[in-house]
Amino acid sequence: MVYAFTKAHATENDFVVLPDPDGTVHGPLADVRVRALCDRHAGIGGDGVLRVIRTAAYDAAWPGAPTSAATWFMDYRNADGSIAEMCGNGTRAFAAYLRTSGLDTSDEITIATRAGDKTLTFDGELWTVDLGAPQLLGWSEVGIGDATWKARHVDMGNPHAVALLDGDGSGVAGLDLSRQPAFDTATYPHGVNVELVERAGEAHLVMRVHERGVGETRSCGTGIGATAVAVMEADGHIADGSTYVVDVPGGRLTVTWTEAGHALLTGPAALVASGTTSL
Amino acid sequence: MVYAFTKAHATENDFVVLPDPDGTVHGPLADVRVRALCDRHAGIGGDGVLRVIRTAAYDAAWPGAPTSAATWFMDYRNADGSIAEMCGNGTRAFAAYLRTSGLDTSDEITIATRAGDKTLTFDGELWTVDLGAPQLLGWSEVGIGDATWKARHVDMGNPHAVALLDGDGSGVAGLDLSRQPAFDTATYPHGVNVELVERAGEAHLVMRVHERGVGETRSCGTGIGATAVAVMEADGHIADGSTYVVDVPGGRLTVTWTEAGHALLTGPAALVASGTTSL
Repeated sequence: MVYAFTKAHATENDFVVLPDPDGTVHGPLADVRVRALCDRHAGIGGDGVLRVIRTAAYDAAWPGAPTSAATWFMDYRNADGSIAEMCGNGTRAFAAYLRTSGLDTSDEITIATRAGDKTLTFDGELWTVDLGAPQLLGWSEVGIGDATWKARHVDMGNPHAVALLDGDGSGVAGLDLSRQPAFDTATYPHGVNVELVERAGEAHLVMRVHERGVGETRSCGTGIGATAVAVMEADGHIADGSTYVVDVPGGRLTVTWTEAGHALLTGPAALVASGTTSL
Repeated sequence: MVYAFTKAHATENDFVVLPDPDGTVHGPLADVRVRALCDRHAGIGGDGVLRVIRTAAYDAAWPGAPTSAATWFMDYRNADGSIAEMCGNGTRAFAAYLRTSGLDTSDEITIATRAGDKTLTFDGELWTVDLGAPQLLGWSEVGIGDATWKARHVDMGNPHAVALLDGDGSGVAGLDLSRQPAFDTATYPHGVNVELVERAGEAHLVMRVHERGVGETRSCGTGIGATAVAVMEADGHIADGSTYVVDVPGGRLTVTWTEAGHALLTGPAALVASGTTSL
C-alpha cells in the first residue's frame, strides 16, 4: 500500500504527518506502522506521527477516540506507537499542515486532541497555542552528578521540575543530560520532565530539557511553558500580557501569560518534505 | 526551489538520494543543502547524500570530479557536507535507485565513484559489491574501559582494527561504544574504525563498529568486509568462495572471498519514501 506523508517540525520536534481525512487510508492506525515511519534509519524518522483525520471519521472503536465538535482531530502517536494525549509543538505542525494543504486556511483553527480542543492562531509567520492554566505547586531538588538545584514544581497537565541556575555563571550548555537527572520521587512518583534554565537577558531565558521516558529533546512545548511561568513567578511578573522568550536547542519560542491565567506558547512550524511511502 | 528526493537505506546506513541526471537541478551541490537534508530533526535525515548524476554531466570544475567511462556517478557527500570517496552500503542504495527508477534496470551495473568504478550485481533480492583487495597488516590492541583485546589491522582503502572476542563469553551486545575505543596511535596515526566481533556459529559473526570520526553506526560496509576477512584468516579459510555471514545492528550481510583476492559484500537495499522538498 502506497500512501502520502509530509515531514514537519516545530522547533525541531519532528513529525511524520499522515493525511487521512476520512480515515479510509489507515483505519485504526497500526503501532507497527508508526514505529516503521518514525525509525530514524530504516524509516522516515520522527518523534511521533500526526494523523490528520476528520473528528467525525474517527471510529469510536479505534483507540483513544475523541469527543469533540472540532472538524479536525490530531491523532498523535509517540514514536513507539503508543497513544499520546497531546503535544504542544505537534499542534503547530498540525495546524501548519491544515493551512498549507488547504484543508483549513483560516488564521484561527480549533483542533480536537485527546486532551480536549486546542485553538491555534496564526500571525502570518508564527503559530500560538493555548497551553491552559499552569499550576504552580511546591519546591524540590534536582541534581546532575554532584550538583543540585532547587526546582519549582509546575503542572502543565504533565509534571515539570524547573531549576533556575544562577549565581555561579556556569550556564546550562555544559550540563550532561545524557542521563536522567536526579529528582524527588516522593514529589514525582510517576517521573518528571526536568528543565534546566539560565537567564540570557531581561525576560529572556535559555533552557535545556530532559523529557520523562525520552531523554534530552530539542524542544518540549509544555516544558517551555513551565519554564517561563516559573521564572515569571520568581520575577513577580505573573500578569496579563507578561511575555518571556525561551531559547531551546531547537529554536526560539515565546510564552505569554493571559488575563485568564493561561500560558500561550508561540513558535514556528515548518513542512520540510512531502511524498509517498509504503512503510 | 522544489526538487525530488528519495529516502533509502542499506542495512540502516541511510541516505537522501537526489536524482539529478543532467546536473541541472543542483549544479555544484552546496554543503549547506547537504547539511539541511541530512539533519535528523529539521530535515529529512540521513548519514549522507547520494546525488544520481551522469558522469558526463558532472562539471570538471565542481568538487571531486570523477574520471570514468561509467554512465552514472555516485556523488556521495557525508552528512556534514564534506566530499566522501566511497561508501560500500551507499553503492547498494544507489544501484537500487537506478533499478527502481528505470534509469538502469540491468542486473550488473558499473557506477563511477571517487574511489574508482564499482560493479554491483543483483540476484533478484540482494546487491553485491566488490570491496577490492583487503590488506592484512599487523596486530595491535584496542580497549574499552579496563578491557583490551588483540586487534587485526586490515586495510580496506581505509584503516580497521578488528578484535575477535572469545573465551570470556561476554559478547559484544553489552559493550559501551558511546565513546572512541582506545587504539594504538602509532599504528593508526589518522584514527581507525574499530570492529568488535564475536562468533554466532560456523562462519557466522556478530559485529559492532565504531566509525572513525562518526561514532557507533548500525552498519559499515568496509568494516564488515574487514571483519569477515580477519576471521577467515584466523580460521584458515582465506580461499576462493569462502563466505561468512556478518550480523550488524542494521541487518545481515555476507562477505565472500574471490579467486582474485577480493572481498565481495552482499546485502539488501531499500527505498523507503519519495517526494519533493525545498530544503
